[in-house]
Amino acid sequence: MKKELEEILQLIHEKKFTEVREKIINFNPVNIAELIEDLELSETILIFRMLPKDLAADVFNYISNESQGKIISSITSNELQYIMDELFFDDMIDLLEEMPSKVVKEILKYSNVEERKLINEFLNYPEYSAGSLMTIEYVDLKKNMTVMQAIEHIKATGVNKETIYTCYVIDEKRKLEGIISLRNLILSDYDLKVGDIMEKDIVYVNTHQDQEEVANAFKKYDLIAVPVVDMEDRLTGIITIDDIVDVIDQENTEDFQKMAAISPSEKEYLDTGVWTLAKNRLMWLVILMVSATFTGNIIKKFEDVLQSVVLLTAFIPMLMDTGGNAGSQSATLVIRSIALGEIQGKDTLRVIWKELRVSLIVGVCLSSINFLRIYFLEKVPFYISLTVCITLFCTVVLAKVVGAILPMLAKKLKLDPAIMASPLITTVVDAASLMIYFSVARFLLGI
Amino acid sequence: MKKELEEILQLIHEKKFTEVREKIINFNPVNIAELIEDLELSETILIFRMLPKDLAADVFNYISNESQGKIISSITSNELQYIMDELFFDDMIDLLEEMPSKVVKEILKYSNVEERKLINEFLNYPEYSAGSLMTIEYVDLKKNMTVMQAIEHIKATGVNKETIYTCYVIDEKRKLEGIISLRNLILSDYDLKVGDIMEKDIVYVNTHQDQEEVANAFKKYDLIAVPVVDMEDRLTGIITIDDIVDVIDQENTEDFQKMAAISPSEKEYLDTGVWTLAKNRLMWLVILMVSATFTGNIIKKFEDVLQSVVLLTAFIPMLMDTGGNAGSQSATLVIRSIALGEIQGKDTLRVIWKELRVSLIVGVCLSSINFLRIYFLEKVPFYISLTVCITLFCTVVLAKVVGAILPMLAKKLKLDPAIMASPLITTVVDAASLMIYFSVARFLLGI
Repeated sequence: MKKELEEILQLIHEKKFTEVREKIINFNPVNIAELIEDLELSETILIFRMLPKDLAADVFNYISNESQGKIISSITSNELQYIMDELFFDDMIDLLEEMPSKVVKEILKYSNVEERKLINEFLNYPEYSAGSLMTIEYVDLKKNMTVMQAIEHIKATGVNKETIYTCYVIDEKRKLEGIISLRNLILSDYDLKVGDIMEKDIVYVNTHQDQEEVANAFKKYDLIAVPVVDMEDRLTGIITIDDIVDVIDQENTEDFQKMAAISPSEKEYLDTGVWTLAKNRLMWLVILMVSATFTGNIIKKFEDVLQSVVLLTAFIPMLMDTGGNAGSQSATLVIRSIALGEIQGKDTLRVIWKELRVSLIVGVCLSSINFLRIYFLEKVPFYISLTVCITLFCTVVLAKVVGAILPMLAKKLKLDPAIMASPLITTVVDAASLMIYFSVARFLLGI
Repeated sequence: MKKELEEILQLIHEKKFTEVREKIINFNPVNIAELIEDLELSETILIFRMLPKDLAADVFNYISNESQGKIISSITSNELQYIMDELFFDDMIDLLEEMPSKVVKEILKYSNVEERKLINEFLNYPEYSAGSLMTIEYVDLKKNMTVMQAIEHIKATGVNKETIYTCYVIDEKRKLEGIISLRNLILSDYDLKVGDIMEKDIVYVNTHQDQEEVANAFKKYDLIAVPVVDMEDRLTGIITIDDIVDVIDQENTEDFQKMAAISPSEKEYLDTGVWTLAKNRLMWLVILMVSATFTGNIIKKFEDVLQSVVLLTAFIPMLMDTGGNAGSQSATLVIRSIALGEIQGKDTLRVIWKELRVSLIVGVCLSSINFLRIYFLEKVPFYISLTVCITLFCTVVLAKVVGAILPMLAKKLKLDPAIMASPLITTVVDAASLMIYFSVARFLLGI
């Protein structure tokens, strides 16, 4: 593929446009989009205009918002209108949401009153809701059609539909009565009735449902499209798998960001400004910095212990880091299992019991390794070595149990478990770990 | 849905099995699977036997491996053979990989020599390769068929195919010549030739390609199925979108685990034994614990500074935590952007420049807030407050830049960027941060 793209680039630079046209129309629209994004604007427009109209609309859908804006301002109103007509409704809504208002006005010029009403309705669905993801280009059938009639209906109307692979059977009030896949239609006798072979145990979602729930329905039922109904069970749109794949990535990115104590943002990293990036990170850093002061206060309270055995200070980083790492391991596994639906609220005790046992194993191993290292290799006095290792053991056990409890608690309280991740766990465990450290030191070293 | 399931449960407990059968056959197989998983084994088998045979095979595919094993050992050979015949090839391979060898032998009894050869071949594809994901049930067409002939061919052979929505045009040597969607077939004139309307710019993958690359192809081209070819470009199988959705989740889970310093494991959390969980976490904890000793050694080297101003110790946790958090924010964003293909190797300098500017903003804010708090509220002496805040500023800048550089470096070295996450960054930044702290203290406090 790469090689062929380079050939085209070469032809463009040599201005052999007839040859370019001949070759490029056989390409996949995604590859054409990739190719013209890297060109000078004038060349982009030139190539774009060479494309047959429906291919042009396809290609338009795959280029970046920035380039879309540039193309919109460079082509004629006729060309623009054609592209708008060809775009699927959900892609047009996405475009309108991203474009500056000047461009939006330009686009809306070519829609009639009814369309504009519909566009407004769609723009008003809350972000991340099923309504904001759906499209209106689906195939609807009636119960009393025969399979042959249904296929003819699809043949006649399907060209503008986002998918024809799942068709929706509705009554005269647009209430959803069943669904039937093109697969079933093709594999059935032509004279059967749609109503007799459609599925009635329908998986559907509501316009106001969160996109994460929609994605979970796709995963659970292996869907390639899902119908969206309004409050009165009327079919209002469908959502297709290609948009859900994007949602899954988006939801995962959000979890990654929350778990690293960043306010989630949907924009790509390189497209996000420095000030926005800083703002998204500052709030949590300040909260965690101030919380870490409590840990500092514990040290102040035990200043006398440190003063008499300064060597104790040298093990603070190791204790804090190991506690934080042990806790974030547990928290991450639990948060991820909750997100994938592998752990439910009812499993809380099982999870804690499991983490407790894991922590005992890990705690014993780490403490032993550490004792061997500092007592025998570094010749640290016996009671100090013992203090460090007892603290290490307690810290690991505590960290793992807290790392399991906090996300489960968040789920119970209907908060997002992802915020109970590494940074917060570290801060909580640090304070506890130092308390244990100094108390054990006082007791064993008799300070 | 929930309510209907409860009704069925009620009927089962009342042993009204005729009514159960009448109701249950209208259910979605996923819901039936969910229902019978929670029953006693004897009831599970009973309900399972009530189902029409092809529904039974469908349901079988959606229940857990554990229940599958139990059902296999409880049903007759005839019943088992039927299910094996009905399962798609990729699902059967998955089943064979998970079952204990006793059960595998039982299953293989019902396959003939040729099948067994094919099964062996598939079991030998490396884990996580395209070959291990693909299935052999696809529709193949010939170039010289008309659209009508193609549709008739699909009608005759499609019932056992995993998808009929994308069909593959091959020559007599099984070399892939083009693909055509059922959509295009249905929407085209019946007497056109397949060879004239098929797509020739085909997106395909090789059997040995990694599943992550396959998933990226699906995302980039909005596919619902992709053909898999061998070294000689012969079509050997196809991969469908439902399996790719699982792959995306799996790859994300792997990243989450690596980023929390856990050796990745594919098994669900609750199904993983305590010893395995402990083993997966220990290696990294030991590595990081030993690395943290360097930080301890820095403290030992500067013992005299701490001895004369013990108060300095109280700020160590806050400095370490904030450095770790600031670094892991940057690392997470960069790792995630690399995983999603938003950042390439060529963007390294842009990323570092961006993080440098963000870190200056964040550093100034955090240091100022901290200075106000400790100097004015906690009445910490001026030069100590200044030492803490200068160190905080330098730590944040360093952490963010290191957090950006390490994942980019990993990518350059063809390592997985995900290992350059929070735990490793924290360990690196801790040491640097303490070095800065004590050096500034020596200079400003004249110790």
